[in-house]
Amino acid sequence: MAQKHVYLFGTPKTAGDASMRNLLGGKGANLAEMSRLGLPVPAGFTITTEVCTYYYQHGKNYPMELKKQVESALRDVEQTMGARFGDPQNPLLLSVRSGARASMPGMMETVLNLGLNDQIIQGLIARSGNERFCYDVYRRFVQMYGDVVMGLRPEGKEIDPFEALIEEAKHARKVQLDTELGAADLKGLAVQFKAEIQRRLDQPFPEDPVEQLWGAIGAVFSSWNGARAIKYRELEGIPHDWGTAVNVQSMVYGNMGEDCATGVAFTRNPSTGEKKLYGEYLINAQGEDVVAGIRTPEPVARLNDQLPTAYKQFRKVCATLEQHYREMQDLEFTIQQGRLWMLQARTGKRTTAAAVKIAVDMAREGLITQAQALQRVKPGELDKLLHPGFVEAAKTQVIGRGLPASPGAATGRVVFQAEEAEAWAARGEKVVLVRQETSPEDIGGMHAAQGILTARGGTTSHAAVVARGMGKCCVAGCGELSVDYQNGLFQADGQTVREGDWISIDGSTGEVMLGQVSTQPATFSREFATLMKWADQARRLKVRTNADTPHDAEVARRFGAEGIGLCRTEHMFFEGDRISAVREMILADSERGRRQALAKLKPMQQGDFEGIFKAMKGLPVTIRLLDPPLHEFLPHEPAQQEEMARQLGVSVEQIREKVAYLHEFNPMLGHRGCRLGITFPEIYEMQVEAIFEAAVAVKKQGIKAFPEVMIPLVGTLREFADLKEMTDRVAAQVGKAHGAALSYLVGTMIEVPRAAVVAGQIASQAEFFSFGTNDLTQLTFGYSRDDAGKFLPVYVEKGVLEADPFQTLDQEGTGQLIRLGTEGGRQVRKDLKVGICGEHGGDPASVGFCHRVGMDYVSCSPYRVPIARLAAAQAAVQEQEARAKTKTTPKPKAKAKTRKVAAKAKAAAKARRRR
Amino acid sequence: MAQKHVYLFGTPKTAGDASMRNLLGGKGANLAEMSRLGLPVPAGFTITTEVCTYYYQHGKNYPMELKKQVESALRDVEQTMGARFGDPQNPLLLSVRSGARASMPGMMETVLNLGLNDQIIQGLIARSGNERFCYDVYRRFVQMYGDVVMGLRPEGKEIDPFEALIEEAKHARKVQLDTELGAADLKGLAVQFKAEIQRRLDQPFPEDPVEQLWGAIGAVFSSWNGARAIKYRELEGIPHDWGTAVNVQSMVYGNMGEDCATGVAFTRNPSTGEKKLYGEYLINAQGEDVVAGIRTPEPVARLNDQLPTAYKQFRKVCATLEQHYREMQDLEFTIQQGRLWMLQARTGKRTTAAAVKIAVDMAREGLITQAQALQRVKPGELDKLLHPGFVEAAKTQVIGRGLPASPGAATGRVVFQAEEAEAWAARGEKVVLVRQETSPEDIGGMHAAQGILTARGGTTSHAAVVARGMGKCCVAGCGELSVDYQNGLFQADGQTVREGDWISIDGSTGEVMLGQVSTQPATFSREFATLMKWADQARRLKVRTNADTPHDAEVARRFGAEGIGLCRTEHMFFEGDRISAVREMILADSERGRRQALAKLKPMQQGDFEGIFKAMKGLPVTIRLLDPPLHEFLPHEPAQQEEMARQLGVSVEQIREKVAYLHEFNPMLGHRGCRLGITFPEIYEMQVEAIFEAAVAVKKQGIKAFPEVMIPLVGTLREFADLKEMTDRVAAQVGKAHGAALSYLVGTMIEVPRAAVVAGQIASQAEFFSFGTNDLTQLTFGYSRDDAGKFLPVYVEKGVLEADPFQTLDQEGTGQLIRLGTEGGRQVRKDLKVGICGEHGGDPASVGFCHRVGMDYVSCSPYRVPIARLAAAQAAVQEQEARAKTKTTPKPKAKAKTRKVAAKAKAAAKARRRR
Repeated sequence: MAQKHVYLFGTPKTAGDASMRNLLGGKGANLAEMSRLGLPVPAGFTITTEVCTYYYQHGKNYPMELKKQVESALRDVEQTMGARFGDPQNPLLLSVRSGARASMPGMMETVLNLGLNDQIIQGLIARSGNERFCYDVYRRFVQMYGDVVMGLRPEGKEIDPFEALIEEAKHARKVQLDTELGAADLKGLAVQFKAEIQRRLDQPFPEDPVEQLWGAIGAVFSSWNGARAIKYRELEGIPHDWGTAVNVQSMVYGNMGEDCATGVAFTRNPSTGEKKLYGEYLINAQGEDVVAGIRTPEPVARLNDQLPTAYKQFRKVCATLEQHYREMQDLEFTIQQGRLWMLQARTGKRTTAAAVKIAVDMAREGLITQAQALQRVKPGELDKLLHPGFVEAAKTQVIGRGLPASPGAATGRVVFQAEEAEAWAARGEKVVLVRQETSPEDIGGMHAAQGILTARGGTTSHAAVVARGMGKCCVAGCGELSVDYQNGLFQADGQTVREGDWISIDGSTGEVMLGQVSTQPATFSREFATLMKWADQARRLKVRTNADTPHDAEVARRFGAEGIGLCRTEHMFFEGDRISAVREMILADSERGRRQALAKLKPMQQGDFEGIFKAMKGLPVTIRLLDPPLHEFLPHEPAQQEEMARQLGVSVEQIREKVAYLHEFNPMLGHRGCRLGITFPEIYEMQVEAIFEAAVAVKKQGIKAFPEVMIPLVGTLREFADLKEMTDRVAAQVGKAHGAALSYLVGTMIEVPRAAVVAGQIASQAEFFSFGTNDLTQLTFGYSRDDAGKFLPVYVEKGVLEADPFQTLDQEGTGQLIRLGTEGGRQVRKDLKVGICGEHGGDPASVGFCHRVGMDYVSCSPYRVPIARLAAAQAAVQEQEARAKTKTTPKPKAKAKTRKVAAKAKAAAKARRRR
Repeated sequence: MAQKHVYLFGTPKTAGDASMRNLLGGKGANLAEMSRLGLPVPAGFTITTEVCTYYYQHGKNYPMELKKQVESALRDVEQTMGARFGDPQNPLLLSVRSGARASMPGMMETVLNLGLNDQIIQGLIARSGNERFCYDVYRRFVQMYGDVVMGLRPEGKEIDPFEALIEEAKHARKVQLDTELGAADLKGLAVQFKAEIQRRLDQPFPEDPVEQLWGAIGAVFSSWNGARAIKYRELEGIPHDWGTAVNVQSMVYGNMGEDCATGVAFTRNPSTGEKKLYGEYLINAQGEDVVAGIRTPEPVARLNDQLPTAYKQFRKVCATLEQHYREMQDLEFTIQQGRLWMLQARTGKRTTAAAVKIAVDMAREGLITQAQALQRVKPGELDKLLHPGFVEAAKTQVIGRGLPASPGAATGRVVFQAEEAEAWAARGEKVVLVRQETSPEDIGGMHAAQGILTARGGTTSHAAVVARGMGKCCVAGCGELSVDYQNGLFQADGQTVREGDWISIDGSTGEVMLGQVSTQPATFSREFATLMKWADQARRLKVRTNADTPHDAEVARRFGAEGIGLCRTEHMFFEGDRISAVREMILADSERGRRQALAKLKPMQQGDFEGIFKAMKGLPVTIRLLDPPLHEFLPHEPAQQEEMARQLGVSVEQIREKVAYLHEFNPMLGHRGCRLGITFPEIYEMQVEAIFEAAVAVKKQGIKAFPEVMIPLVGTLREFADLKEMTDRVAAQVGKAHGAALSYLVGTMIEVPRAAVVAGQIASQAEFFSFGTNDLTQLTFGYSRDDAGKFLPVYVEKGVLEADPFQTLDQEGTGQLIRLGTEGGRQVRKDLKVGICGEHGGDPASVGFCHRVGMDYVSCSPYRVPIARLAAAQAAVQEQEARAKTKTTPKPKAKAKTRKVAAKAKAAAKARRRR
């Protein structure tokens, strides 16, 4: 039997279905599926993508059998539609469209109204009784065929020869719009068009409908390798050898009179998710008129008044499609002389809020399961629900566009110094802190500001990380910004913005705007709460938060955090007077001097920890001991150094010497983390004392505390063992002094590659691992987050990297070290608690990886907690589905048997579909 | 049967042997072995280390059986020596000495001449007929016993009470030396000593010899836990639970008359290795007199004239011992009344030159195999033979001590700027470049200088690495140095040294000396050449060199390099005018501008490569494309920036902006390596063109060239694949243009952890891997070489790390990534060439690891090539030995059988030893 190249749809012989997307293309498969459902689809047929492949492999020739199959299919279509192609008495008109496996909108060719000539048009006029309509159709067809098939479409700024003729005609008639031209004008145009074709190409317009059809089919196949299509595929990563199908379909018309209409609709509201038909239509119009905006379309419900029968039928179609696809549908329809035709049905795009509501509603309606509902919402998009946003219409002039580093909307007056931000905020001003980049010294100012805008740094720069932690809006690395601290201004897009001027920044888009833009608050729907509840039931991973203050801790707990996975103690060092004590400690040249300064710090640290323990109400709190290098706590500007000298009563020289002594070429790889703990044990001792004394203090107030002491940057067993011994000793001392039994764990961050490699050794002592994937990524790749801006964007653009590894975990490289570390650790300590506390803990794809690698929890910034909860649920659901699949797939004993079983299963599936 | 606590030696019942070092301590095992060989050893016995353990575990009590075993052993000793302990007629005197498993010289106690009292001394006088000798022995015994056993030895600066009495006696006699005191004086002193003991301790000196013996034994055991001994063990890493043995031995005397003598000797010359007895002796003297320097000892050969019989016997003993131990021996002997006694025999220490000669000679004599000879020389010590050194005697005032960063000796006038160094050298001055630290800009000056001295940075700092590469002497990180560039001086140890002053630096010791110190050249003996030849025959690893210039390449080839494993192209960028073109390239803001500047550089690079290809005469040359970040090529000092502006005809502002733009927070993790190649492809293209055109050019001169193009810092397959494609394309172009077929490989450095993790992917494209262990160590640990000086020394001191991982490869961590990378790569590409080009390629322990991990070659700086050759040979020999061992050890079928076989083997071995 000859290979089947042509698949009918909209006829009783419909042969395709939705699963045959690869062979029939998206559109073809879809039309077949709709007709299989018994929906009114204009009859037609699909020439397969295999023909496209053949076409290119055989010098643009078709398989021998194609012609016969097309002819035969055409006969079926004619029979179904009750008209004949090329029949002057009762003509059938056709559209010829591309349709690839993946959507490539506008990239390939289309020919409409095919099958007309000077003779046939008369038959059309006779049957429709609408001369103007028919000549309009005719001249459109000639124009389109001339452009698309015969190659007269101009390139670049040339004028289309046919458009030029239309302009002339309008000029002669002294009218403005095409619609003002009459039947005679249009008839004349068709004649002129053909003459123009003859003139330009020295060949006539083909009058034979069959010749027209093959010309159009060839044009569609050829357009697969058009320059635009190739470029598009390269950008989208669509393989060039997929090829396109060609859909030949009967034309239907919404513009044949007042009993005709055309429209688009969603089965539910795509903005809110409300379960109600949503869309619009126009009476006596073509599809393009609905979106063109010349006439104002009517809301779809009004169709009930105008064409009630068709509307009733359409509602039924909507119900059928939703029931069938179990998804909200985006539909195109045409009503021709009272009869409904469905032209397109596809899954509809929607807002995040709508996605949440539709998923929950559909699950409640029994259309989908809860597990399916969980997978209907992209976790990353929840971000939009959690932050206030700008009122879109109120947006003003955009003077720069940076990286959307931390979502939300902020409007405030520009300040350039962290101290200024605090001062202005203290007197009630809303400010946006604008910096070249931020450093830990700026924490206070960042807290005080509505939002943060930086000229340098990526989405994992200091500003971005801290802002996300605070749930504060941040636009980072806005390269157009030229910041001039000295004169208190910045320039962007030719505008000068001075201290005190109002700006607005959108952390979800990266836009920087002049002036004040009004915002709308975040809203949490009941459906959101429901979805989150389902997520919590489904997931195995716990979700914790990275929080350094009682406020952040409370926010995170409201978002569902089940503990703190990373509490960075160094941020506390910058607050208020503490920095003085910290600096005193750093300047001290003896252990005794350091201990004296640390003694001043201890009560403050203890207070911090008490606040956090109280906020977390008995949930575990992982506290990381001091991590950054000491030079980060010293001022680098002369003026600040002088102030510090005055405050501490030392010479400026002494401070400068210390700054110079502590200077590091690569601070990222320097004297930090547990290296501080080993060289200056007194610092960690103070912190550990403060932790345990805080735990005892809150216990006396009836609140439980479960500190998990985390030693940062461990690379060797001995580092960890020495510091764990110290921690246990201090815990015993504090416990004894207060007669209290302390519950705590001691563990480490795995953030240098060596720790992952020797994880088994470290786990012999450590009670938990928390993968610090920010640093681990830096070290695994050898990228500095602060400097990678010069090459990472190029890497992502050129495809050297699929994604920025600081945003989504590099599963192949960094991920393998995580796997190695987790398995190595668990081999030695079965119940080792394993989590992640890098930025990746809030990235959905990375959360999925954490689930698969067997972690116990992820930890992320407070505002990403719901995202992580949903992502964790999806990972669990997907795992279950994969497991269910392996279970039901019978394990074959021999290859022959497999094939038989597979064939049987296929047949059964087919039968099911037909039922 | 009771446990055996006491082992006899020097008697027919000798029970120990050399293999029982753990039980008998080094000295005890040695004495037993000598007596087993039939050599004249004064009879005695060893109380085992197990008794020491028991002693400490049981509140300083002895095992019950010990007393009886000691008494019984003493009877045997008496019988052998023909004298009796405590017998006034014929007294036997004893020494009681410690003897641990590892040598702990001077850390524990010794009591000599034990067994005397007022009665017994008379017997001794009667038998020896030498009253003065006897009273001298007596007073020495009382003094030592008082000090050691009875605890009168003063601490710190106190004066020994016994010494005070001796001073009084000399004062009374009006003499200067102890030897001028007569028998009566000494007799009087013994009496006074005892009175002093009674006075100070309110207890008498024990007159009972048996009580004396147990007192001394207890004192020795107690001294195992003396403060000094504990400290020593901590420093040397000797476990505290090993314990010491106690050796009780008959006294013999070299000072009983003119037929007595005492001496020390080596069986071969320990300085030159010459096969000739080497040592000295004194007639009628005690051991300590030989080293005390009061009398000048005679060369040992003269003994032939003075005591020919004893000398003849001694020569025979020497031959026996060398034959037995197959090692050069360090001997102590005493001749008492014409009779030779051997007191000590141990493997002698020697210079490196001697070690080489002795190993080769012994192999030729058939004493040892070539494989054994290869293991007799520590590879690291060869360094001393390869560099000139200072004449030890000529050394002057040491004003500072830094790290011995690159061996050799340099003397020259101080300059502080690289340009100065070049200028002074150009006019024939010898200079030493003194810097805070060096940077790539200083390369020219470093080349011009005799040596380099820096105040900061470790043994793997820029200065150290580059100097070693150049084979140039370098002292790095001399913390005492305070460098004042502005005033052109440095201060150290209170001295001010100005530009132009002479200093001398010793790169093998780290010493910094004032003035000129004369040097002696490196010497290569014939035996050195032989040993190297044997090494080359034994090793499997190839040895290449890291060389950037034809000169270095030639030096390395003379040292036996079999190719270049790392040619760093960036060093070439700094030479002469090139830096201008490089800077022009960096300043250019367009690809076109960069290409123009690169076109100027290309002929120079090509010339460099031609020179290197010629120097290597057809050996493979691995060329690494540009690695450092571009900012390293720009000047950072205002004056230099202004000069650059003048030279390039641009504004200083432009240069400053570029410097600011290129600034990186962590340059180590920045925009460098193949990241430059991906973002600015034209740079690598120029380099690759220069490489292949150079290969074609030398080929036309009849010289073969095998370039191996090495892409640095690859972390992903795509980086490598893109750049390999470029390389292959350029090679094809160059080959076509010249009608030449090019032989070359394209490979990568594995230096970021990710590359090791995804090595399999990369090997699908890469033809070789070279582990860049400097960077790999930095990234695996997260240590910056330039900054680790603040904590690494503390880490090594506290034992957190066993060694500086930049000096010797961290096999557990970094090494595991190397193993992972090698195995991963070879799984995909069986014939993948694998090498190492980090500093570790010249470290013997690391070379051993490279052998075991299955690498093809190591590459190191030219002067370390011989070291690597020997280390590679040792690794191969050790592997063979280990394999041979597994082969001969029968694989047991059951445990019972194993035990039987093992017992049999043990018995056989014992039998062999007895033969």
